[in-house]
Amino acid sequence: MKLLKVDTLEQAREKLLAQITWDMGKTEKIPVEKSGGRILACDVLAESPLPYFPRATVDGYGVRAADTQGAGESIPVFLEVKEEVEIGTVPSGEITGGTCAYVPTGGMIPRGADAMVMVEYTEPFDTSHIAVYSSVPSGAGILQIGEDVEKDQIILTRGTRLGAAQIGALAGNGIREAEVYKPLKVTILSTGDELTEPGCPLKPGCIYDINTPALARMGEEMGFEIVHTQVLPDREAVIEQALRQGLRSSDLIVISGGSSQGKKDMTSRILDRISNPGVFTHGLALKPGKPTILGVDKESESVLMGLPGHPGAALVVFRLLAGWLERQRTGCPEKPRVPAVMESNVPAAPGKDTILMVRLLPGEGGVYTARPVLGKSGLMRTLTGSDGFVRIPLGKEGLKTGETVTAELL
Amino acid sequence: MKLLKVDTLEQAREKLLAQITWDMGKTEKIPVEKSGGRILACDVLAESPLPYFPRATVDGYGVRAADTQGAGESIPVFLEVKEEVEIGTVPSGEITGGTCAYVPTGGMIPRGADAMVMVEYTEPFDTSHIAVYSSVPSGAGILQIGEDVEKDQIILTRGTRLGAAQIGALAGNGIREAEVYKPLKVTILSTGDELTEPGCPLKPGCIYDINTPALARMGEEMGFEIVHTQVLPDREAVIEQALRQGLRSSDLIVISGGSSQGKKDMTSRILDRISNPGVFTHGLALKPGKPTILGVDKESESVLMGLPGHPGAALVVFRLLAGWLERQRTGCPEKPRVPAVMESNVPAAPGKDTILMVRLLPGEGGVYTARPVLGKSGLMRTLTGSDGFVRIPLGKEGLKTGETVTAELL
Repeated sequence: MKLLKVDTLEQAREKLLAQITWDMGKTEKIPVEKSGGRILACDVLAESPLPYFPRATVDGYGVRAADTQGAGESIPVFLEVKEEVEIGTVPSGEITGGTCAYVPTGGMIPRGADAMVMVEYTEPFDTSHIAVYSSVPSGAGILQIGEDVEKDQIILTRGTRLGAAQIGALAGNGIREAEVYKPLKVTILSTGDELTEPGCPLKPGCIYDINTPALARMGEEMGFEIVHTQVLPDREAVIEQALRQGLRSSDLIVISGGSSQGKKDMTSRILDRISNPGVFTHGLALKPGKPTILGVDKESESVLMGLPGHPGAALVVFRLLAGWLERQRTGCPEKPRVPAVMESNVPAAPGKDTILMVRLLPGEGGVYTARPVLGKSGLMRTLTGSDGFVRIPLGKEGLKTGETVTAELL
Repeated sequence: MKLLKVDTLEQAREKLLAQITWDMGKTEKIPVEKSGGRILACDVLAESPLPYFPRATVDGYGVRAADTQGAGESIPVFLEVKEEVEIGTVPSGEITGGTCAYVPTGGMIPRGADAMVMVEYTEPFDTSHIAVYSSVPSGAGILQIGEDVEKDQIILTRGTRLGAAQIGALAGNGIREAEVYKPLKVTILSTGDELTEPGCPLKPGCIYDINTPALARMGEEMGFEIVHTQVLPDREAVIEQALRQGLRSSDLIVISGGSSQGKKDMTSRILDRISNPGVFTHGLALKPGKPTILGVDKESESVLMGLPGHPGAALVVFRLLAGWLERQRTGCPEKPRVPAVMESNVPAAPGKDTILMVRLLPGEGGVYTARPVLGKSGLMRTLTGSDGFVRIPLGKEGLKTGETVTAELL
């Protein structure tokens, strides 16, 4: 058993970035309407101003503002209605002194008009005239050319996750394809003679595999493409073959195994044999998460991640390393964490970063209370009973009742 | 133009629930590994205890705790090693006084043993004996039968969204299929002679359609199945036909149109004609969101939702109504909102609920500052520049600088 120095989470992250000497930022163009949840790989500029014509923001009459000066509730001004502008069309004439045109919300303001009078402040007077009971300033009720977006203005920046609003903005600018990052291809392997695949009968002493489906789902949530999952026995040759296959097909290979020392040594040995330069992190100063291994293979341009066997630890470390890597790769910022107030004191693990699972209880004024979810390593309950987790940084003795923390949602 | 009383958001929600007299909670059974993001339609009970055998949580030796009494760093106790238990197998013998068995993490504890001594506190003595340098209490290093989950205990409740941890819990309990709610089938229609579909040339005065792709994406994010989207001209017969088709194929039909009064009246008239009992909410006391229409058709068991034409208003109202309806239907709780401190004073709209778009800026101690994103109705910028929105309830005059609010993320 080799004794190796563990890395802090930050050290491991820095090493990982330094080792990735290839381009992880491959992109593809996809139709905007299929780009939901994807991340923009470049800034998007407006090809034309928005709106590209002066546009009514109310139902009413396009007027020359000067013509309405002095109009009031009991002193109407009378204007001749020259036309009814239909939405989606160009007004046929120009508004000159003493005239106006009906324009619906969203319609084009005719030349000559510089303000809208809302229909509520007008009344038909005769077949060709209206009475106006309000004076309006120039510009009222009009969205000017480029007022929303100017031509060549950046409307969305690289690293933006495309949600409903962003897809609307792209569509509104007439953009049909979005250049987004290709999802990382991920292989997920779980090792252990005791692991049983779903649907198979359970032999005494064996357990159903948790890590493969749980890590696969978390990978999907982080935007990865899961290309392969497999449960493997504790046989070196079989594991090596699966890892080599992973190198060929994936950008990231995740292997989680038993937490026994023998297995950890075996995984590390195989990873070192099949990859170059191989494993550079042999453990994390993180609780839970110590038995974490990180390596790269420059030839196949793959990242290798050995995760702890305990499902809770495996999921947290996967988020802290692969989720972080994905943000580095794409420039997509972290989702807002939820601030919460600690319900009780919790000590930290000395010399390590400590991850504390928490349940968020709604509190006064919308501020959450963070209730620690404690339990022995490997309990399912701590996983399903938590809304998220809090990180206690190395060097901090613990968290105090009433202290504000920020929880990363699971 | 009929003058109709508007409803508050809460009134509209109550009316909607009261009008839905059919079962919206249809369910389906799907494989657990494909159930990510879906919502459980029933409580899930454990079919067997977890673990179902006493399980080692450390690498070491299964012992009778009484045999280790008195052992210490300089006073070892010597025990005979009867066997090496392999993971995934049943120990062959029983531990009697003065004996022990090697058990790896995750392995089954042999009968007779009631504690684990970690390998770090032992040393090989001769070929068949070890020296133990620490005394352990009964139960140390062992997860007892049912300690994580007891048989028939509820492991996940109805309304739970299935994330990575939940999928892991189902898999670990040997559950292969999850009973989840069927997604609501949704038709999304946008109306307007000015609306141009992506890729078509823009005629002067026309604009690209925003609402269809934006609402479709938001619907997907809320868990709906978008069965049809269509952009329609302002022609009553065409709109009526599309709505009738929607009634046949969908649980929810969303139509957003121009904000001009004529169009709103037309939409309301058509909805009333094709549905029974028809429209019951003719406007919301909500800013933005006034031109919102709600109805149901009991024969086809469909909900009808007329949304404002402005994309920002349409998206917010869709979330506030359809997102709320989905939570009612499935019992899935709202995702945690993010508490934040107002950066400036903002007045509310009198007599209405006010929705304020905000940007969340990271602040001291992880608490966000909420910066209001203001702008004329219908600006794209207010949409893409916001992280979420804050609701100022009717009757509240506004928000004050420094006041804590909770933002619903977009």
